[in-house]
Amino acid sequence: MNTILIVGAGLSSTSLIEYLLKHAEENLWQVRLADMSLELAESKIKQHAHGYAFKFDVFDKEERANEVEKADLVISMLPPPMHPMLARECVKQTKHFISPSYITPEMQILHKKAKTKGVLLMNELGVDPGIDHMSAMKIIDEIKAKGGELLSFKSYCGGILAPSCSTNIWQYKFTWNPRNVVTAGKGVATYKEKGQYKYRPYQQVFAHPLETSMPEYGDFEVYPNRDSLSYRNLYHIESIPSILRGTMRRPGFCQAWNAFVSLGCTDESYVMRDSENLTYVEYIESFLPHNERSVEERFADCIGVSVSDPILEKFRWLDLFSDKKVGVKEGTPALILQKILEEKWTLDPDDKDLLVMQHQFVYTLNGQQKRITSSMSYEGKDQQHTAMAYTVGLPMAIVAKLILQSKINLTGVQIPIAAQIYEPVLKELERLGVYFTETIEDCE
Amino acid sequence: MNTILIVGAGLSSTSLIEYLLKHAEENLWQVRLADMSLELAESKIKQHAHGYAFKFDVFDKEERANEVEKADLVISMLPPPMHPMLARECVKQTKHFISPSYITPEMQILHKKAKTKGVLLMNELGVDPGIDHMSAMKIIDEIKAKGGELLSFKSYCGGILAPSCSTNIWQYKFTWNPRNVVTAGKGVATYKEKGQYKYRPYQQVFAHPLETSMPEYGDFEVYPNRDSLSYRNLYHIESIPSILRGTMRRPGFCQAWNAFVSLGCTDESYVMRDSENLTYVEYIESFLPHNERSVEERFADCIGVSVSDPILEKFRWLDLFSDKKVGVKEGTPALILQKILEEKWTLDPDDKDLLVMQHQFVYTLNGQQKRITSSMSYEGKDQQHTAMAYTVGLPMAIVAKLILQSKINLTGVQIPIAAQIYEPVLKELERLGVYFTETIEDCE
Repeated sequence: MNTILIVGAGLSSTSLIEYLLKHAEENLWQVRLADMSLELAESKIKQHAHGYAFKFDVFDKEERANEVEKADLVISMLPPPMHPMLARECVKQTKHFISPSYITPEMQILHKKAKTKGVLLMNELGVDPGIDHMSAMKIIDEIKAKGGELLSFKSYCGGILAPSCSTNIWQYKFTWNPRNVVTAGKGVATYKEKGQYKYRPYQQVFAHPLETSMPEYGDFEVYPNRDSLSYRNLYHIESIPSILRGTMRRPGFCQAWNAFVSLGCTDESYVMRDSENLTYVEYIESFLPHNERSVEERFADCIGVSVSDPILEKFRWLDLFSDKKVGVKEGTPALILQKILEEKWTLDPDDKDLLVMQHQFVYTLNGQQKRITSSMSYEGKDQQHTAMAYTVGLPMAIVAKLILQSKINLTGVQIPIAAQIYEPVLKELERLGVYFTETIEDCE
Repeated sequence: MNTILIVGAGLSSTSLIEYLLKHAEENLWQVRLADMSLELAESKIKQHAHGYAFKFDVFDKEERANEVEKADLVISMLPPPMHPMLARECVKQTKHFISPSYITPEMQILHKKAKTKGVLLMNELGVDPGIDHMSAMKIIDEIKAKGGELLSFKSYCGGILAPSCSTNIWQYKFTWNPRNVVTAGKGVATYKEKGQYKYRPYQQVFAHPLETSMPEYGDFEVYPNRDSLSYRNLYHIESIPSILRGTMRRPGFCQAWNAFVSLGCTDESYVMRDSENLTYVEYIESFLPHNERSVEERFADCIGVSVSDPILEKFRWLDLFSDKKVGVKEGTPALILQKILEEKWTLDPDDKDLLVMQHQFVYTLNGQQKRITSSMSYEGKDQQHTAMAYTVGLPMAIVAKLILQSKINLTGVQIPIAAQIYEPVLKELERLGVYFTETIEDCE
């Protein structure tokens, strides 16, 4: 009998828990689900014979040590800054640990000690990061094995609305943390294109989106993510001339979002005076130069379009020029924008999300230039079984199984880029409906 | 015999030193000029009978205490962060202190102790800040005394080229610290217009300049300075509906500068890879999206103009699309831009600078709305006697005289907004060629 400790029973844990419970009996697993809220944990375990839900305070040192001691594997679904606390306890007690989040310096520092003790700390095991690593490395390794030389790697991912409910003029709602959506893209995006390093400051990130399309889902635009260059080392493609990672949105989104960025509506660095009593139109007026023309005219002018441009419909639809009250105390521009968007972008009970991912590789093989396009899409089933929760939870669950079956011999702080991980995980994901469609073509 | 200690013999001190030496004999002053460089200090004292130049290390505690002890008044022309160190010693030894720089929290904290000891720590006593405070307060006090109600206060200042040498296409060269020019306007500019608070993020600061004109000097444009709102308390005009402070540039400057801002060329937050070997055109290429069009076409597109727009001449004139080498190791975008600009914007030996300042007041008096426009301009004489050095140094020198003549009864941390300061200083400045021309007109 193996014991799995899952810490955190939130939305992202749903599919993970269901998979582990489903396979608990055949594998002789006991699934212990810990959360601050006993009620939430119980609602996920549903009195399953192999499950146990309990109230847990990860900051309680003794409790933490006791629970890790009972477990053979610890799965952290906590907010990212809390992972290292749990990982340190795992190293101490020689227990394997997995998380869906990016490796932080605090996590990385555990590498040597974990290796010495034979403990695996596997991170970045959700969808992005996670499935992106695995599906990209599979193709990179294949191209290398054939003797191909990589010229370009582009990798895009997006969490958006399923087409059936993507009916609003933005074709967008909040399918994940609204604050992260509002502040997405801050900092400088760096990538490389035909040997030239590229730097896009925040005010340019949404200004020139790339275009792509997906089988069954049509056209998308892509804005560059913060640091694409670090993936050269991660994926062992140091000398690749072109590399870019980006986020996918529906056509027209980036230009409209860029209006908010360029006006300063996503700023978190100061509180707007008397924000509670501002109306929407006063909020927008705050960012516009004063003259005799109407707010809409000046807004259009500031974002570089004419007042008859159809893009303005997106802002009218948000009631941005209305006398609605903001009603946010001590609000930063970003917080007020979030409030305005939440009025319109909150998911309805039967809205479904859509997860899309696409890798594009260009390489030469025997003097011929070739292009591989590898695309994955997955639609959520309902508000509990979102595409996001499914694609984050399943890689975690599958790796948990592999670890408990002793099919992984890695130790230390890792991300899922080794064939011994990506091969079985991608295979099992495919069986569960999460799969990539690959096309290969000759370039002229 | 009174002893004046001046610490710092740099460019900004020239006119200050000359004024004090000129009036030393009649006032029985001894002027002690301290600098890290003995040679520099000696070149400014020129063996004047009432002057003494010496090498000085402000970080040497003992030296600092000894020199302050010898002085009746200490004038700090040090870089701004170093003022408090000297001011603390002055408070300790009960000596008056003046500086041309903004009050920092470190300075402000000395207020109570200075007041208790009867010491004056007078700051913001150059041109901007300095002459702006005095000339604005004079008119504000006059309007209030007449019973007028202020509706709007706008205050602009700029250091540019004198028309005789303002012949390059930018009509601009570095007349002060190049780094400060390159990074000017960062942060959010806040002001108030007809009762509405306005917030302009950095990417909008140069996008919509105001326009004004000056007697004899023609047209200017103005971009808003960082925090105009704090001047409401400083000038005791808390409830004024419109307030804005701005920086003056020649027409066309702001739109062109905004190109650098929007592309991210003024960013100081990261080092560009292999910066030493970049050419100018590769530097610009780094900020542009990749496609088949020419660099100039993509540059024009990114800054929102057509490739035939005359604005592009400004960038061609800087050789921005050339194969010249950047040659800056570990260069941030801002540092490389500064290097590129220094090639073209460095003053020639006979270039002269021009200091312009303008206040605009709108107020109602007896039911009639009136507008006062008060303008000052001053041209530099040569590279030592710049307009900047003259207008920074003279208010300092005049206040030094007033303090030593016991004509000022203020104590604590102050700025020059009291009539007992601005009246004699503005009068003496006028005698020395620095004066405001005032127009008053009825508004419709």
